[in-house]
Amino acid sequence: MAKVKIYVTLKDGVLDPQGKTVQFALDKMGYKNIDSVKMGKYIEIDTKNDGKDLKKEIDEICDKLLANPNIEKYTFTIE
Amino acid sequence: MAKVKIYVTLKDGVLDPQGKTVQFALDKMGYKNIDSVKMGKYIEIDTKNDGKDLKKEIDEICDKLLANPNIEKYTFTIE
Repeated sequence: MAKVKIYVTLKDGVLDPQGKTVQFALDKMGYKNIDSVKMGKYIEIDTKNDGKDLKKEIDEICDKLLANPNIEKYTFTIE
Repeated sequence: MAKVKIYVTLKDGVLDPQGKTVQFALDKMGYKNIDSVKMGKYIEIDTKNDGKDLKKEIDEICDKLLANPNIEKYTFTIE
């Protein structure tokens, strides 16, 4: 059993309208110290695979399904 | 300057159709070892506030804007 935590974020330079909207809202709510907000996805996967090939498998899963390689990057941790 | 990383996930027991959909897709793609998939949000905030009250401010921001307290929980780290 392994728990994989995956973080998918937009690549630098890609417009993040959701993040900008949150930042705008926070400014309107009086939080004036916020410099930037970036929105991403957080995915937790429980898997029975805890072997050496798990890292390769998660890379595949991210590339094929979870992240759009054109505009998104991802990192993950295995616990 | 501080960087805050916020993870918003559904509370235990709340139905996660997006996670189930990803899990189903992974199964169809041949990844048979996956036990569960949970989808959440990942938010990165850069702020000029790095004082003692930052933790309180982030709690407020999560409660008021980023997480739906009825069905979601959140954690965050400050770097």
